[in-house]
Amino acid sequence: MTLVDVRQRTQQLAERFASRAEEYDRTASFPIADIDDLRSEGLLGLMVPTRLGGLGCGFEDYVAVAAMLAEGNGATALVFNMHASVTGALAGIPDDLARALGAGDDFFAVRDQVLRAAVEGALYGVAISERQAGSRLSLVETTYEPEDGGYRLRGHKSVCSGAGHLDAYLVAARARQAEGPEATVSYFLVTAGDGVKAEGSWDPLGMRATVSTSLVLDVIVPSERLLTGVEGLALPMAYAMPQWLVASYAAVYVGLAQAAVTEAVAYLKSRHAAGTRSSVPGSVRARLGRAKAATDAARLMVDHAARLVDTQPGEAETNRFLYQAKLIAGDTAMDVVATLSEACGLGALGRGSPLERIFRDARCGAIMPPRSDVCADYLGTTALGGDPMADMERPPW
Amino acid sequence: MTLVDVRQRTQQLAERFASRAEEYDRTASFPIADIDDLRSEGLLGLMVPTRLGGLGCGFEDYVAVAAMLAEGNGATALVFNMHASVTGALAGIPDDLARALGAGDDFFAVRDQVLRAAVEGALYGVAISERQAGSRLSLVETTYEPEDGGYRLRGHKSVCSGAGHLDAYLVAARARQAEGPEATVSYFLVTAGDGVKAEGSWDPLGMRATVSTSLVLDVIVPSERLLTGVEGLALPMAYAMPQWLVASYAAVYVGLAQAAVTEAVAYLKSRHAAGTRSSVPGSVRARLGRAKAATDAARLMVDHAARLVDTQPGEAETNRFLYQAKLIAGDTAMDVVATLSEACGLGALGRGSPLERIFRDARCGAIMPPRSDVCADYLGTTALGGDPMADMERPPW
Amino acid sequence: MTLVDVRQRTQQLAERFASRAEEYDRTASFPIADIDDLRSEGLLGLMVPTRLGGLGCGFEDYVAVAAMLAEGNGATALVFNMHASVTGALAGIPDDLARALGAGDDFFAVRDQVLRAAVEGALYGVAISERQAGSRLSLVETTYEPEDGGYRLRGHKSVCSGAGHLDAYLVAARARQAEGPEATVSYFLVTAGDGVKAEGSWDPLGMRATVSTSLVLDVIVPSERLLTGVEGLALPMAYAMPQWLVASYAAVYVGLAQAAVTEAVAYLKSRHAAGTRSSVPGSVRARLGRAKAATDAARLMVDHAARLVDTQPGEAETNRFLYQAKLIAGDTAMDVVATLSEACGLGALGRGSPLERIFRDARCGAIMPPRSDVCADYLGTTALGGDPMADMERPPW
Amino acid sequence: MTLVDVRQRTQQLAERFASRAEEYDRTASFPIADIDDLRSEGLLGLMVPTRLGGLGCGFEDYVAVAAMLAEGNGATALVFNMHASVTGALAGIPDDLARALGAGDDFFAVRDQVLRAAVEGALYGVAISERQAGSRLSLVETTYEPEDGGYRLRGHKSVCSGAGHLDAYLVAARARQAEGPEATVSYFLVTAGDGVKAEGSWDPLGMRATVSTSLVLDVIVPSERLLTGVEGLALPMAYAMPQWLVASYAAVYVGLAQAAVTEAVAYLKSRHAAGTRSSVPGSVRARLGRAKAATDAARLMVDHAARLVDTQPGEAETNRFLYQAKLIAGDTAMDVVATLSEACGLGALGRGSPLERIFRDARCGAIMPPRSDVCADYLGTTALGGDPMADMERPPW
Repeated sequence: MTLVDVRQRTQQLAERFASRAEEYDRTASFPIADIDDLRSEGLLGLMVPTRLGGLGCGFEDYVAVAAMLAEGNGATALVFNMHASVTGALAGIPDDLARALGAGDDFFAVRDQVLRAAVEGALYGVAISERQAGSRLSLVETTYEPEDGGYRLRGHKSVCSGAGHLDAYLVAARARQAEGPEATVSYFLVTAGDGVKAEGSWDPLGMRATVSTSLVLDVIVPSERLLTGVEGLALPMAYAMPQWLVASYAAVYVGLAQAAVTEAVAYLKSRHAAGTRSSVPGSVRARLGRAKAATDAARLMVDHAARLVDTQPGEAETNRFLYQAKLIAGDTAMDVVATLSEACGLGALGRGSPLERIFRDARCGAIMPPRSDVCADYLGTTALGGDPMADMERPPW
Repeated sequence: MTLVDVRQRTQQLAERFASRAEEYDRTASFPIADIDDLRSEGLLGLMVPTRLGGLGCGFEDYVAVAAMLAEGNGATALVFNMHASVTGALAGIPDDLARALGAGDDFFAVRDQVLRAAVEGALYGVAISERQAGSRLSLVETTYEPEDGGYRLRGHKSVCSGAGHLDAYLVAARARQAEGPEATVSYFLVTAGDGVKAEGSWDPLGMRATVSTSLVLDVIVPSERLLTGVEGLALPMAYAMPQWLVASYAAVYVGLAQAAVTEAVAYLKSRHAAGTRSSVPGSVRARLGRAKAATDAARLMVDHAARLVDTQPGEAETNRFLYQAKLIAGDTAMDVVATLSEACGLGALGRGSPLERIFRDARCGAIMPPRSDVCADYLGTTALGGDPMADMERPPW
Repeated sequence: MTLVDVRQRTQQLAERFASRAEEYDRTASFPIADIDDLRSEGLLGLMVPTRLGGLGCGFEDYVAVAAMLAEGNGATALVFNMHASVTGALAGIPDDLARALGAGDDFFAVRDQVLRAAVEGALYGVAISERQAGSRLSLVETTYEPEDGGYRLRGHKSVCSGAGHLDAYLVAARARQAEGPEATVSYFLVTAGDGVKAEGSWDPLGMRATVSTSLVLDVIVPSERLLTGVEGLALPMAYAMPQWLVASYAAVYVGLAQAAVTEAVAYLKSRHAAGTRSSVPGSVRARLGRAKAATDAARLMVDHAARLVDTQPGEAETNRFLYQAKLIAGDTAMDVVATLSEACGLGALGRGSPLERIFRDARCGAIMPPRSDVCADYLGTTALGGDPMADMERPPW
Repeated sequence: MTLVDVRQRTQQLAERFASRAEEYDRTASFPIADIDDLRSEGLLGLMVPTRLGGLGCGFEDYVAVAAMLAEGNGATALVFNMHASVTGALAGIPDDLARALGAGDDFFAVRDQVLRAAVEGALYGVAISERQAGSRLSLVETTYEPEDGGYRLRGHKSVCSGAGHLDAYLVAARARQAEGPEATVSYFLVTAGDGVKAEGSWDPLGMRATVSTSLVLDVIVPSERLLTGVEGLALPMAYAMPQWLVASYAAVYVGLAQAAVTEAVAYLKSRHAAGTRSSVPGSVRARLGRAKAATDAARLMVDHAARLVDTQPGEAETNRFLYQAKLIAGDTAMDVVATLSEACGLGALGRGSPLERIFRDARCGAIMPPRSDVCADYLGTTALGGDPMADMERPPW
């Protein structure tokens, strides 16, 4: 499947997602049919190397696919984003580096198996956030400790998109004895099953179909499921290569903003008879024009950041652009839906109408971690030559 | 009941409304218990002169009451606003002026009867908007024509808050033969009953409990139910004394913004243990501080406009402030909920939480007619010495 | 002179100031003729009690006068503001409180003499800020220590409006031995003369005619010139009754915003022939309309805060509104000139044109201490029930 | 000279420009030394094809060069922009198209001569705007008519950057008999000399060194100096290929925004001792971070639009991005300097300081035609499938 094929198929999927979005949103239920489509089109293997049967795509491709899917259903795109984060992060660790860090053959075997399974349809997600810690890795309270030749993980994760519907979770946990910001925090790939339980309800303002409930963990995982086989990598990775943590959402919010523009154009055209387009008030046209410009600016920012990830991962400029992408995309999505809902008026905001759903979904963009204010602090701190871990109001991770 | 009493009772009602708001919002059903409370506390007679048993309040009192009620439930406050608009407009027409315009004893008898009924619990509303015309009175397509000694009204009104739950409606209709912007458009007080039928569904983003469905009219009304007994008053009144059309909503949106501030403070305090208030990030404190300042600025604007209505109704400065009040209150409500939802984060936006509901309700503020862009055009046009009817992009009414 | 007289005269003065503003701005020179006008009209005694021959005005009157003067020349209004701050603060200390704090007859004699001199034409100003400390009183490095029965003050003040043109300065200094935020910081009334020297140049973007150079102090002042006769009052007063420190500027910025609106209307009318007002583009009308609404909202906020100062000085609500007034007025002035300069275009921005000067002057509004971000933090902190001294990112004073 | 060379030299020039910017700005005088540098470095031939000795660059290269120059001195970059517009437009007309439109050998000879002269150091500019018409080509009142085998041009141009310092001007004029929006408006290349006279003064808020005075024309030009040899091309070209009219400024404003960021960082670092970077308040860091993100977003937008010009000139998407580039770059420059001046405070805004100058220069960005509101209308109109000439509030040209 060529890249052109991928984008074409994605486009078709987005249209199908759009037709189902209203119901998944209304019922706040997991978009099983959408995921089935992604599976049957091979998109769960998007980030998996071709040697393992995947599509071997990079971050720029991911961004294009995610934005397109979000034009169909933002919630499905977010679920896909989590899956892509796990597979993309696994695929993106250079073998040499992993070996240097301590990864053994066991780890590589697990990694390849997990990636191959994705190609065959396994769906993954991320379990990092907790109620108190939020998304700050250094503060997670889920613990791990050696037991039975593996690690016993215990804790309570929150806002875990797709909890209960996934085949495995990327879990962040701290070594049991460690405390404080210097805690040893590690990543584990935890297979669904006993000791991994979705819990609680999910009935939020927006992004309802992500079904991001809590996940209660009390489970022993084999030692080779410790990421790269070495403890304490979670925090350094978050600072060194933050693409998945920071900017993968951004693509979704660009897609949402574009969906709002598309819907607003369709609505306004339907309200104003053909040939009288000039009857759309100037103030409404101006809102639409500015919204489209802002959306395209956000997209260019996200695309550029993605290209940098592919060409110079981990460099300071790349990471700066990742935070910029999150900041601009999140803020833009909210601004765009606010102004377009005003441009279209109450008639476009009946519950279940696309614009009404997008309005609620987009509200989540600037809120999702790192919040826009945190991004701004990171960017200002680094612009001054400061160190995010030391000089920000509080470290982001 | 003194004014202090009124405000005190209103405060108590608002608290009761708040406790019921989640359910009325979820089910998009009419807030019957809230209305019963308003009735039993005598607030349906707020705008009725004391000589008819009412509280004899002015616009400034109305504004204070409406804002307070909106802190409890914005949708109930909007329904109350419609009732206050009808009773307030009726009570506000000076007898001399009405007589000069052509009102006869019949009209005064009806007016007093309608107002007295409000004191006894009758609930009224407004049926002006239509799907094509929006709120532009000059374009309404509902017609009236003489029949059987009265007037036969036929048409289809939209977004009629409380449709089907009210005792009478203030209906705008055009004389059947008249067309174009110079149409003769008149107001009628139409009693609920045969030929007055709520229709359609109401399931919008926000302000769900207003149950603002359509209203289908095919009914004969007695001639004394033509407002002030003379045809063609709707448009001149809209330009001359626009307080109820323009600014009565504004108070509701100020109340909503304040409710958002109150809820955000409560949420943030609950998230951050006592004694560690400084743990609320500076960026969050700044959002909260700016939101509170903007809310108070909007309130002062609405209060000032209201005082002008009471002291110098119909003057150019008064009307300018009314449009300013609508503009500032509507925009502020949306800005405040946008920034406070970001300050509080996803945890505060679970469906059914107050902030989540207020977020949706507030989106309607700047959208409700006259839209904020229309207000801005009116204000710019009059600042330049122009005539709103002739010089605006399109006349507001 | 009645209050109506005061406002009328102020109005006339503002017109004269406007005619001189271009030259004072261009040459960045002190507005001597404006000050002479203020003197001959008795306005230097605005805040002085009638028993001492002054006009006996309160904060609300001050706000009205300052805003009006700023419509003529913002820089002159700022100089007047400093004078009013000194006289207003002196006049505003209740005798009982001053006595309780330790003030003796000597102090009262000096106070009355200083106030009486203002009525006769003396001009005062404020010397608080320093290069390192900014306006944070707790950090000032100017020291005082007992010497020769009085106090010897030594230090270097910056941004002292009118330095070299004034008859006396209100100087903040720390007791020589004291350091740190708990420093004993006191106010002195320092008469111009030997040991009090204006220094440095003043050639800034805006507010050029304030001539706010540095002031170098090495002078002995009589002990009765220590404010209220007791040391350490500067900081407690800044927190308890911050009207002059926080909100006196706000009135000036409201006046500037109004001046921008007035100039924009005049310019746009001159560009568009009579009778074709509708030829002003809708987007321009909307910018103008929103600017006027924002200006009026800022004015209402400042007026309300001022009324609270007069009726319930020192209360928490009063102080909250003072910070709100500064925040809203400063931000509004900048927003208004930014949008109106865009509405009018380059033709209105020739150097020396009123709008060009106002554009530069207004940029200083949100910047002057307390900066808008500091106000926002104060407001958010207090909204959460926090203590500004303890819980803000850094204390404002 | 390779492209890498070009950018490197440009970088060096920008640094030299920066060192001279204060004086040119203060005296509002033409940046002769900067232009000499551009000349001696061969940059006046940037857009000239290599076959004529030029650098043969495209629009993307131009954008990079212009933005870089603007980091040194925005006014010089604007003058360069005008020169690049003339040479770029001339070089960009495909020979085939020109021939098809009616261009004969005479025209090609003139064109090549003009371009070759640029390589050798001739400096060109644009004379389109007029006091009444603004930049709307269809309304220019400068006329031309046949005389002596050529054309006689008569009229009064305004805001002509570099007037009196240039070797030739691209002049828009209408055929004498034609009136109304359907007027025949043509471009002429008018050589400096008798009958071409700079007039009036230039003393504006910002962009002072462009010396954009009026240009009074009463001159006969040879017929081959009619662009492409055919009348009436000005308007169709403005709609079909608007890159130079719409977006060439945008690059300059991106450069200005970046210069503001650079200056703000330098200023803030100088104010806060090494090692205490965290002492920069969080609110200041956030302003800086958001400003940098916005600047980069604007740059990406301008770069993208420029790439489209090079690869698919004249297509609807290209033109849409050109208007987006102007809108975003102009607004961003103003927003960035507004927030950074607030972040840095009065100390950074002394007259002659870089930030003070950039603040004034940037104010002109969103104002320069097409104004941001006109861009927004264009974008909204085209998003709705409308035709800018027919459906906008007023056509842009």
